[in-house]
Amino acid sequence: MEKQLLKIVKIGGNVINDDIALSLFLKGFAAIEGPKILIHGGGKKATQVSEAMGFQPQMINGRRVTDAATVEVVTMVYAGLLNKNITAQLQKYNCNALGLSGADANCILAHKRIVTTIDYGFAGDVDAINYEFINVLLQNNITPVFCAITHDKNGQLLNTNADTIASEVAIAMSNLYHTELNFIFELKGVLSTFEDKNSVITHINAEKYKDLVSEGIIADGMIPKLHNCFNALEKGVAKVKIGDASMINKANKLYTTISLK
Amino acid sequence: MEKQLLKIVKIGGNVINDDIALSLFLKGFAAIEGPKILIHGGGKKATQVSEAMGFQPQMINGRRVTDAATVEVVTMVYAGLLNKNITAQLQKYNCNALGLSGADANCILAHKRIVTTIDYGFAGDVDAINYEFINVLLQNNITPVFCAITHDKNGQLLNTNADTIASEVAIAMSNLYHTELNFIFELKGVLSTFEDKNSVITHINAEKYKDLVSEGIIADGMIPKLHNCFNALEKGVAKVKIGDASMINKANKLYTTISLK
Repeated sequence: MEKQLLKIVKIGGNVINDDIALSLFLKGFAAIEGPKILIHGGGKKATQVSEAMGFQPQMINGRRVTDAATVEVVTMVYAGLLNKNITAQLQKYNCNALGLSGADANCILAHKRIVTTIDYGFAGDVDAINYEFINVLLQNNITPVFCAITHDKNGQLLNTNADTIASEVAIAMSNLYHTELNFIFELKGVLSTFEDKNSVITHINAEKYKDLVSEGIIADGMIPKLHNCFNALEKGVAKVKIGDASMINKANKLYTTISLK
Repeated sequence: MEKQLLKIVKIGGNVINDDIALSLFLKGFAAIEGPKILIHGGGKKATQVSEAMGFQPQMINGRRVTDAATVEVVTMVYAGLLNKNITAQLQKYNCNALGLSGADANCILAHKRIVTTIDYGFAGDVDAINYEFINVLLQNNITPVFCAITHDKNGQLLNTNADTIASEVAIAMSNLYHTELNFIFELKGVLSTFEDKNSVITHINAEKYKDLVSEGIIADGMIPKLHNCFNALEKGVAKVKIGDASMINKANKLYTTISLK
């Protein structure tokens, strides 16, 4: 039997930090037909709350160091404020959303990152996705909304990269569904000329990816992003798309599709 | 067919504010056999976070006034920090918990309290419980853990009394289960002599309740608490118990049981 299509969409700070953009996106997301999952990052709010509470977030190589106070703040902001506001807005748009952290129903089991050179504190690396339970929700017409908080099954919550959660959820759900993973970011897709925001490369396969890296067209922060996409594809995800928030609207055709072949 | 027993337990600040007491309680709660639901209040943490962020919570007649900033804080603290830490701890004790606000899967629909004399701001009065979905969770051996945040299906989160949520959930679940509602507070039960913390009245029915009120033994804050209990019993809840955190342990027999007859 052919597997049913499942759309998995990940949004980050560029959508979350802007109330109007977020509301517009959520209205569009709610209108997506069939089973779907939303994964959201954190954005500026965690930094604002940290600062309001009188401590400065510590960053190493652009990544947040999660000390004991920070894991409290990100749990409050990601799993509380953002996750519940997103869920309530989706309910408004008649999407029966349910907000989840990785601790809920043991959906995302992780372990505290092993310290090699840099100690990122309570940062979690994903071990397992409870895809059977996520499927129970989907079968009941519920739309899971994941924040980027996981747990270690020993009572500890862990701060986890939202792109990684999106990939891991998509990979695990591929056991049951034909999965399409959508990464939404600030650009319309992977660009051939960075200065031209409309120069979207509409399709990248593994071979073309190698060429684009060797030509220097894909560089810097795009390399781990695309590496993450190909990892998902190699582990069973059917299709990956990268684009801006309008990508989820049927009318928009300008984005990058990534596939193995 | 006889209905299955469902235990619903509500904890408040006296357990939540004390890490050791909370951990001990959660270990005991995890050990309860059969389907169960936990409802938790907020406690001091919301006030601490409010103060750390530089604003003083406003109280009228001992109740929190929920302005726009406060609804953000209680969403962070109740639905984020407390709910996810409780869930992660229950997972540690092999209880497959899932933390929920009222917005999640539209579990608890409410409306913003109508202003008569006092404007409590974003305070929610409960309209409906999605007991069919809560039952889906129970049938999948999931333990729902509710914080005291509801929504209005129009995108607004609302701060709601946790005792009321416990009652309303118990009443709604009585459609499907033989429900036992457990209110945990700082005393061992309803006391006949306030100075003697062991003078627990072990059983109160509607007739005895009237006598105890007229004798002045039940007074002040205990009146709305017991009113809430009898309301639940009149609307289908099978049994209500009031006691301290040890009430959930089988060995403890000292608590107050409340029933209609």
